[in-house]
Amino acid sequence: MSARLHKWFIEETSVDTAHMFGVKEYIVSAKTPFQEVEIADTETFGRILVLDGKIQSSEYDEYVYHEALVHPAMLCCAKPRRVLVIGGGEGATVREIFLHPGVEEVVMVDLDREVVTLCREHLPSWHRGAFDDKRLTLHYMDARDFLVDNEEQFDVIISDVPETVEASPALKLFTCQYFELVRNRLSDGGVFVLQAGDFGLPFVGTHCAILNTVRQAFPDSYSYRTFISSFNTEWAFIISFKESRDKPDSAEIDLKVRERGLSLRFLDGETAASMFSLPLNIRKLIEKEKRIIDDQNLLTSY
Amino acid sequence: MSARLHKWFIEETSVDTAHMFGVKEYIVSAKTPFQEVEIADTETFGRILVLDGKIQSSEYDEYVYHEALVHPAMLCCAKPRRVLVIGGGEGATVREIFLHPGVEEVVMVDLDREVVTLCREHLPSWHRGAFDDKRLTLHYMDARDFLVDNEEQFDVIISDVPETVEASPALKLFTCQYFELVRNRLSDGGVFVLQAGDFGLPFVGTHCAILNTVRQAFPDSYSYRTFISSFNTEWAFIISFKESRDKPDSAEIDLKVRERGLSLRFLDGETAASMFSLPLNIRKLIEKEKRIIDDQNLLTSY
Amino acid sequence: MSARLHKWFIEETSVDTAHMFGVKEYIVSAKTPFQEVEIADTETFGRILVLDGKIQSSEYDEYVYHEALVHPAMLCCAKPRRVLVIGGGEGATVREIFLHPGVEEVVMVDLDREVVTLCREHLPSWHRGAFDDKRLTLHYMDARDFLVDNEEQFDVIISDVPETVEASPALKLFTCQYFELVRNRLSDGGVFVLQAGDFGLPFVGTHCAILNTVRQAFPDSYSYRTFISSFNTEWAFIISFKESRDKPDSAEIDLKVRERGLSLRFLDGETAASMFSLPLNIRKLIEKEKRIIDDQNLLTSY
Amino acid sequence: MSARLHKWFIEETSVDTAHMFGVKEYIVSAKTPFQEVEIADTETFGRILVLDGKIQSSEYDEYVYHEALVHPAMLCCAKPRRVLVIGGGEGATVREIFLHPGVEEVVMVDLDREVVTLCREHLPSWHRGAFDDKRLTLHYMDARDFLVDNEEQFDVIISDVPETVEASPALKLFTCQYFELVRNRLSDGGVFVLQAGDFGLPFVGTHCAILNTVRQAFPDSYSYRTFISSFNTEWAFIISFKESRDKPDSAEIDLKVRERGLSLRFLDGETAASMFSLPLNIRKLIEKEKRIIDDQNLLTSY
Repeated sequence: MSARLHKWFIEETSVDTAHMFGVKEYIVSAKTPFQEVEIADTETFGRILVLDGKIQSSEYDEYVYHEALVHPAMLCCAKPRRVLVIGGGEGATVREIFLHPGVEEVVMVDLDREVVTLCREHLPSWHRGAFDDKRLTLHYMDARDFLVDNEEQFDVIISDVPETVEASPALKLFTCQYFELVRNRLSDGGVFVLQAGDFGLPFVGTHCAILNTVRQAFPDSYSYRTFISSFNTEWAFIISFKESRDKPDSAEIDLKVRERGLSLRFLDGETAASMFSLPLNIRKLIEKEKRIIDDQNLLTSY
Repeated sequence: MSARLHKWFIEETSVDTAHMFGVKEYIVSAKTPFQEVEIADTETFGRILVLDGKIQSSEYDEYVYHEALVHPAMLCCAKPRRVLVIGGGEGATVREIFLHPGVEEVVMVDLDREVVTLCREHLPSWHRGAFDDKRLTLHYMDARDFLVDNEEQFDVIISDVPETVEASPALKLFTCQYFELVRNRLSDGGVFVLQAGDFGLPFVGTHCAILNTVRQAFPDSYSYRTFISSFNTEWAFIISFKESRDKPDSAEIDLKVRERGLSLRFLDGETAASMFSLPLNIRKLIEKEKRIIDDQNLLTSY
Repeated sequence: MSARLHKWFIEETSVDTAHMFGVKEYIVSAKTPFQEVEIADTETFGRILVLDGKIQSSEYDEYVYHEALVHPAMLCCAKPRRVLVIGGGEGATVREIFLHPGVEEVVMVDLDREVVTLCREHLPSWHRGAFDDKRLTLHYMDARDFLVDNEEQFDVIISDVPETVEASPALKLFTCQYFELVRNRLSDGGVFVLQAGDFGLPFVGTHCAILNTVRQAFPDSYSYRTFISSFNTEWAFIISFKESRDKPDSAEIDLKVRERGLSLRFLDGETAASMFSLPLNIRKLIEKEKRIIDDQNLLTSY
Repeated sequence: MSARLHKWFIEETSVDTAHMFGVKEYIVSAKTPFQEVEIADTETFGRILVLDGKIQSSEYDEYVYHEALVHPAMLCCAKPRRVLVIGGGEGATVREIFLHPGVEEVVMVDLDREVVTLCREHLPSWHRGAFDDKRLTLHYMDARDFLVDNEEQFDVIISDVPETVEASPALKLFTCQYFELVRNRLSDGGVFVLQAGDFGLPFVGTHCAILNTVRQAFPDSYSYRTFISSFNTEWAFIISFKESRDKPDSAEIDLKVRERGLSLRFLDGETAASMFSLPLNIRKLIEKEKRIIDDQNLLTSY
C-alpha cells in the first residue's frame, strides 16, 4: 500500500545543475501578473515557497535565512524606529523586525499582492501574525517608484527581492542608480541590507557585481553569507552603512542582542563571526570585481 | 517572468527505468485507507489519475484505454444486459458500457470509496455523468467478497484493477481460485475481460503468468493489447469466453459496432485486428509460460 | 557496499516529457562533425546507441526494430538483388538484408564515418560481421548527393535516418524532391521503406506529414508501426511501392518468409497484420493530413 | 546538430533529496572489491570522483576540501615530521601535506588499491605527482588493522574515509574504540583530524554523534566546516588535540601560514575564523548530543 516517492520539485540552478526535492503535496500553483508561485509540502524541508522555479524559503530553515537577513542590520542601527522592507512577501522579515524594541513603523513594499495574500494564508509559521501588526503599512507597487515618489526617510532598509530571473521587474532594484536612491532615503546612521545572490563558487560572480555596485553608493558595504540547507548552497547578503564603519564583530552582536533582549535561534556573536569572515578564494574574486550594474546594463546582461 | 518547468511526476516502472511528466498543477494528493491518490494536470496529457505512483489514465488518451477494455467484451457478448465492473473508479468504464443498447443493469464494485468520490469530482470528462445513471449500482467493498457473497450472474464482467503493487488487496483478484469464482458468476455466453499488465518486453512476464492462470478457468482466453501514449508502453488485456470460441476478427467487430450503432473514436475492425494480432516474439513467451498464480502464491512472489 | 543507482540517461522527448534509463557504464561519448554519439550499457536494455540524445536502438530489442524496418520491404520485392541502405550505421540493417537469398550487392551510404567506426567496434551483436561481407560497399557521404551523382538503380532502398533533430543534414532526406529522386533510383517493382518517426499520439503529426509527402512520389505508400520497448513508444515506418499494389497481408508474409527460408524472431504473418493494421484515431489523422514537406519548407518548420 | 544535456549523475542524499549534475563524459565506471567507483567530467565542476554514488571531490573545488582537511591540523602541530593518512585515495591530501617544510615521512593506508590506481591515472590535477614522493609509503589494508599491528607514532593523523555507506568497512573507523587506538598512535603534541560528515541541518546529527564519540578519546576536539560547492552542502571536520588546547584563532593561522611559507588558495586566518565559528542552532545540537558510537553499535545503527 506504500509506494516510492514520485512527486518531485526540480530546482534548476543552471542548465546542468539542479536540486531535487520529494514533495508530499502541492498546496498552491498559481500565476500572478508578475511570477509563477508554488507552495508545497516537501518531505525534508516541510512547506516551501517557490517563485519562478526557485525556492525562496522553507518552513524548516527559514529562520536561518530571515535572522541572517534582518538582525545584523537592525542591531547595527542604534535606534531603528522606521524600517522599510522591499519584497519579503512571506512576512517573516517583518516578523523578525518587530522583535526589536522601539520599532514604531514598518513599511513593506511588494509588487505582487497575490503572493502576499497567498503567503498570508498558507505560510502562517512564517509571518505568525506579523501582517496584523498595526505598525505595518503595506504597499503593493514597484519599490523603485515608491522611493522616487516618497521622500520619507528610514533607519533601516531591507531588500529581499530575487536577483536572478530574466526580465524580472526586480532587476532595476540592483543598479547603482537605485542604490543611490536608497541612500537618499536612509536617515543618518541608517543601515541598508539586501539579499545578494548565491555565494556558491560557480555562481558568486553575480554577488561580486552586486557588491561592487552597492559600493558606489555605500563605500562601507560588507558581504556576509550563511549556508541554507533548503537552498543547497550558501546565500549572500550585503550590509551597507550610511556612516563609515567597520563590519560588526562578535562582541558587538552579542552585546546588542542582550541589550535588546532578543532570543534568537540562529544568530549570535559567533554565528555573525562565521558569516562575516569570508574565505580567501572568494575575497580575491571580490577584490578583482570591476563591474558596475546600471540602469542601461542590467544584471542579466552579464 | 517565465520559467523552466520544475514540477515533475516521475513514474518509476522499475528500479532503473522511469517516465517523467511535466506537471502544470496538482489537483489532489490524498492517502486513502488503500492507496495513495493523485490527480494532476500535465502539460502534454492533460489531467491524469495516479494511484500508488502509477498513472492510471489521462484525459488525453483515456478513450483509447477504455474503448480497448470495454468494447471487445461487450461486442462479443450477444446481449449484454447485466454487466459487472470490478474497479474502474474513474467512471469511464461504466460510461463506455452504457453506450451499448440493451444494457439494463451495471454493478460496480470498487474497494476505495474515496477514489471514486475524487474521480467523480475531478474527472468529469471521464465519467461524463455515468455515475448518475439509474441503471448503475455501486458497492464499496472487496470484489472477491462480493462475488463470494453474491450468487447473481452477469453477462459481461470487466476487471480493471492494478496488478503490480506489493501487498495490494487487488492481488487476490489475479489467482486461479478467483478466476474460477468469476466463471461461476458469468451467465451462459458470458464474457470476462481484465486489464492484464504491461505488455512491454521487459515486463510482459507478469502478463504471461496472468494469462496462463486465467486459462485454467477459461480455456478460451486471448491476450490483446494496445499502445497507450500516456503509459509510454503497450498495455495488455485478456478476453475470456465461457463458451468455446475464437478471438474476434475484424469483420465481426465492424459488424457489431454497426449493429449497435456505436460511434467510437479508437476501436473498429482494423483496430481490433491490430490489437489481437500479437508479435511472434511475445507469442513464444506466452507459449512457454507454465506459471499459475494461486492464493498461496500471489503475483508479487514472482 | 552496494549503492542506489546514480547514472541516468534522460531522453527528453519534448520539453515536458522524458524517459529515464539507469546506466551501468558509458562506453563511448564522442562528438563527430555531425552529431553527438553515446554508447552505454543500461541495466534493463543492455547496450544502447544514442545520437544527439535520442536512443537509436538497444541490444535488448534492436531485432524488433531492424526486422520491422527491413523484412517487409525485402519480402515485398520479388527478387531483391541490389539494395541501397541510407544511414543504418549500426550495421543491423545490412545484417538483416543479407539473410535474404539472392542479394548480390548492398550499398550503404552514411554521412558519419565516425559513427560507423564506433558501431563496428562497440556493437558487435548488431552487425555480427555484416560489415565484412564482400557484397557490401560503404560510402561516407550525404545520401542526397549520392543519389544525384549516381544513376544506378536499386531493387530495394531502405532509409534509416533520424527525422527530428534541428538543423540536421538528414532533414533534406524527408522532402518531396528527395522522394522523387529515390523513386527514380528504384528499379521496376522496386520497394522503398523508411523509418518515419514516433507514432505516439502526441508526436504522430510528424509521421503524418512524412507519409503525405512520400505519397506525392509514391501513391502506393503505407504506414506501419510497432512498439519498441527501449523507445518507450511505437515507432512508425512507411513502405512505398513503385508499382501499384496493396499493403502486404498476413498470408503473403508467411509465404515469403517460408520461401526464402528465413528464421526470424519478431516478424511473421501475424506480426505483420498487427503492424499494418492501424487504429482508427490515427487513420483519421492520416486522412486529414495535407502538409507536404519540401526543400524550401523542411520538417522542423512545422 | 546540438542537443540538450542527457547524461546526468544524480547524487541521492536521502530518499527524498538529490543533486543533479550534467555529465560531459564518464571516464571510469568500476566495481572494486570494496566499492563502486566513477570518474566523470561534469559540465560545471570538471572532473569528479564518485564512490558508491557519493561525490568525493571535484577538480573545480577539491582545493577547498583538501586545504580545509589538511592545513588546520598541520599548522596546529608544532613540527609535523611523521604524518599518517587514512583513506585519501585521490592523493590531494598527501599533496597538501608535502607543502609543509620539515615533513619527513608520510604513511598512507587505503583499503582499496584499485581506487588509488584509478586516481593516480585519472586525477593528475589532484595528486600532482605526490604519489611519487620518496617520503611516501603506501599500504593497501584496513586502517584499523594497520594501527593495531603497528606501534609507530605519528605527529599528525588525517582520516579521510566516508562515513555514510551501509556495511562499509569504514564504519569501524568511527567508533570510540578506534579513536582510542588513534590517540595511542599520536606522539606528544600530536593532532588528529577527520572528515566528519554533512553539516547541513537535516543531516548534521551524524556529525554530532561522531564529535561526541571522538571527545571520549580526545576531550579537546573541535568541529569546523566549510561549504563545498560541488557537494551542494557544508562539510564538517573535527580537529582533536592530544594535549589540551583551544581551537585555533585567526591570528595563529595567519602566523603559521607565514612561518611555513605556504601559499594557499583557500585557507588563511579569516577563512579559519569562518570555519571554526559555528552557528548557534548547530552548537545547541552539539551540546545536546549524548550518543557514543562503539564497535557494537556502528554509525548506521542510528
